[in-house]
Amino acid sequence: MNDDPYGIRDGEIAIELPGHFDASLYFIGRIRTPWKKREDCPKNARESKAECTIELDPRWATGLTGVESCSHLVVLYWMDKSRRDLVLQVPHHYRVGRGTFALRSPARPNPIAMSVVRLLGVEGTKLKVVGLDCLDDTPLIDLKPYFASTDSAPDAVVGWHTEQKR
Amino acid sequence: MNDDPYGIRDGEIAIELPGHFDASLYFIGRIRTPWKKREDCPKNARESKAECTIELDPRWATGLTGVESCSHLVVLYWMDKSRRDLVLQVPHHYRVGRGTFALRSPARPNPIAMSVVRLLGVEGTKLKVVGLDCLDDTPLIDLKPYFASTDSAPDAVVGWHTEQKR
Repeated sequence: MNDDPYGIRDGEIAIELPGHFDASLYFIGRIRTPWKKREDCPKNARESKAECTIELDPRWATGLTGVESCSHLVVLYWMDKSRRDLVLQVPHHYRVGRGTFALRSPARPNPIAMSVVRLLGVEGTKLKVVGLDCLDDTPLIDLKPYFASTDSAPDAVVGWHTEQKR
Repeated sequence: MNDDPYGIRDGEIAIELPGHFDASLYFIGRIRTPWKKREDCPKNARESKAECTIELDPRWATGLTGVESCSHLVVLYWMDKSRRDLVLQVPHHYRVGRGTFALRSPARPNPIAMSVVRLLGVEGTKLKVVGLDCLDDTPLIDLKPYFASTDSAPDAVVGWHTEQKR
């Protein structure tokens, strides 16, 4: 049965959210992608070779000084269409309940997505990148330089995911 | 001269912050580290072999289901002691102005840090990890599984940083 307007599935668990928030965010720009509906988005960023454009609000323009020298960036963005109270989720294709913190699902207490993108170029406050899979007009929260020395873990394993593929 | 209580340096540029926030966060736990003062923290996470403990609020405990199968996690946390209006910063050891989005400085419009950690073990709502460099009691915002396929870019280059080391 799926009679919840936000779409909770059989086997999923929602908890009561805290009564107050603890911190607040500015949206500092928007992400332009080819995808207008969630079902059009690539299932994950690896499958996408699409060029997307990050449009930073001009207020923060000076913050881009030096960004053009980075080959890759960490992009944080806000998935504002997601419920925040799910702790156990049943991903569409898998049918097994997984904890929210073992998933990259947009439904999480703080719906912040993290993507690693390849930077193609910077023109004014617009950045052309490859590696995003989000909806068009997604709010931008942060951009960071990607340091291979601390951010790259090529041997990392997600055990439940590896098991599933066998 | 440094007469700003938040510590702006010569050559740094602050802008006027937006008049309102756009979204809000829950702190979902705390990070326990050996470092009580900023000057004690390792200069970056790579230099630290220290075991730290992520303490998730029990409300979210079920969200950890399956996390123990991950070798590495993405940790998002809130650097609440930082000013948010700097767009050009002069890092302590470098003396050259860099854009906020070309730096991993805690001073940024949304002071969210991202660290990749190695997971040593999960016990109840406590996670033992290696790879953090933050202050003790730092608020936790999110935990995600680290997927090498999308999150690892071993050849990534931060040009300004490479130049500096020459």
